Amino acid sequence: MVDNLQSELDLVEARLRQAADVEYPLVGDFLSAIVASGGKRLRPMLLLLAARSFTYDVPTLVPAAAGIELLHTASLVHDDTIDHALFRRGQPTLNSAFSSEAVILLGDFLFAQSAILATETMNPRVVRVFATTLGEITDGVLREIFSGHRTDQTRQDYEMRIYGKTASLFAGAAEMGAIIGGAPEHAIEAIRSFGTDYGMAFQIVDDVLDFSSTSETTGKPVGADLRQGTITLPTMYFLADSDGSATATLVRRIADGEAVPEDEVDEVTSLISSSDAIDRAMEVASTYIETARARLDVIPDDAVRDELHALTDLALSRLY
Amino acid sequence: MVDNLQSELDLVEARLRQAADVEYPLVGDFLSAIVASGGKRLRPMLLLLAARSFTYDVPTLVPAAAGIELLHTASLVHDDTIDHALFRRGQPTLNSAFSSEAVILLGDFLFAQSAILATETMNPRVVRVFATTLGEITDGVLREIFSGHRTDQTRQDYEMRIYGKTASLFAGAAEMGAIIGGAPEHAIEAIRSFGTDYGMAFQIVDDVLDFSSTSETTGKPVGADLRQGTITLPTMYFLADSDGSATATLVRRIADGEAVPEDEVDEVTSLISSSDAIDRAMEVASTYIETARARLDVIPDDAVRDELHALTDLALSRLY
Repeated sequence: MVDNLQSELDLVEARLRQAADVEYPLVGDFLSAIVASGGKRLRPMLLLLAARSFTYDVPTLVPAAAGIELLHTASLVHDDTIDHALFRRGQPTLNSAFSSEAVILLGDFLFAQSAILATETMNPRVVRVFATTLGEITDGVLREIFSGHRTDQTRQDYEMRIYGKTASLFAGAAEMGAIIGGAPEHAIEAIRSFGTDYGMAFQIVDDVLDFSSTSETTGKPVGADLRQGTITLPTMYFLADSDGSATATLVRRIADGEAVPEDEVDEVTSLISSSDAIDRAMEVASTYIETARARLDVIPDDAVRDELHALTDLALSRLY
Repeated sequence: MVDNLQSELDLVEARLRQAADVEYPLVGDFLSAIVASGGKRLRPMLLLLAARSFTYDVPTLVPAAAGIELLHTASLVHDDTIDHALFRRGQPTLNSAFSSEAVILLGDFLFAQSAILATETMNPRVVRVFATTLGEITDGVLREIFSGHRTDQTRQDYEMRIYGKTASLFAGAAEMGAIIGGAPEHAIEAIRSFGTDYGMAFQIVDDVLDFSSTSETTGKPVGADLRQGTITLPTMYFLADSDGSATATLVRRIADGEAVPEDEVDEVTSLISSSDAIDRAMEVASTYIETARARLDVIPDDAVRDELHALTDLALSRLY
């Protein structure tokens, strides 16, 4: 890891804990648990690294990084409400303890805290990127809802959806870091695009993992997306390859939400998992990662460039 | 009305319509209808008037005013989701046409649009007030959820709750206007406090109206708050005055959510409506309005001061 990045990440962690520290004891405990269970902090790392080669203004970067991570957390809380999910990352979600009404508000509360953190940068351009990102995320999740159960959607539909749902946050994190760092305009643009491509790859890998992971790892059944009517890239490739077959018809029926016997659903997800569709989806993810890496020329500092390169390895390695 | 305020309000209206103009046809129609049915635009008026005596920078004020109104609209959408309300102001809510999942997202989408509008001011202090207001609103609604069915809450609990739920938006609108106007610090503070006091009065009047309006006017039964377990100032005064009586016990049972026969509930709400508790609550509202008016000395322009004074009349006159 680049010299000292850990100490900034510790500061980010402290700000996150502070934002979740509310006066309602039960809510506070759950918010703290959710904020604390937050994975690798990839988005804050990306934001910090985006500034690292330029002006590295820690007091401004830390609230921005905490803000973008909390925006991610808030969107997960609303996502879980929407999915009625009881667990995420092995931790109980707010849904297990609160009414869905309270959870909506708790998500709003986290959105507000994330926006307050972003405004602490006192940089209008940074705040604008932040607000636009929030808009893009909701747009992406709305697209997911409205494209649900639709097997006629195009690859472009899919890409717009995962851009909003996932890549926009990585793009926003990278851009915010580069702006705070005072990077030249062409570098800000390239670093943002790095974030976009990285995020697209990240989500495609996620969609592949949905077919290849066991339920012990993810807490969800294999093919959970398809089972709830969300059509992802592996399913799209599989449908295109098996067009007209009995299996394709069955996939469409599952996606449509028809009551298909459990063993047939298991068989279909297993067919998709072992099909060529998985490799083709992974090729798309790899191409995004290659494009992302090619953008790193604008980073003047070798160590930082290597660190961003390592971050892209991390996205792909989640598979193994 | 102050010279030209209408033309600024028209610009605000246009920005609101633009923010609701989304590409999903059905959603777009509903969002447009909800944004268009938005009452008197008191919050944008307050924001504009707060700046009117100072530097009146219309291109900055218009997005700020649209942003604060849309923040209000977004919070109503989530409120309606929480209440499962099918109508508001005589218009169908989003709940009548969409799943609650989609409505959560549509509320988030409006929050994002409101934040984007606020950041258009490119004024970090304004954006910070905006984000803090969002935090205060969610805090207020959370307080309402967690204080539901609790007849032991104090007057201070009630005031903190209505501050967050309602007054914070008026305070934020006034402060944002004064900051954009470049008002001196003591005037910014006084104008914000005007907004707070005005908002407190506004919500108390609303809580009184809940007991005194017929269902034809509001679309809700008389005493709807009490029926759903929300204890407001009239109920608090009524309980204090009738402590130990059979009626007080009945009020507590209704507030607790017990199954009380409809005719007994009607009788209790009718008793509260015609009790002294209503007058005492109105006195509190009037005192807030007086305090608000006393703060208007900082406004140098007579016409603007008169207009803000008229706005306070409007809050009280909703009763008649």
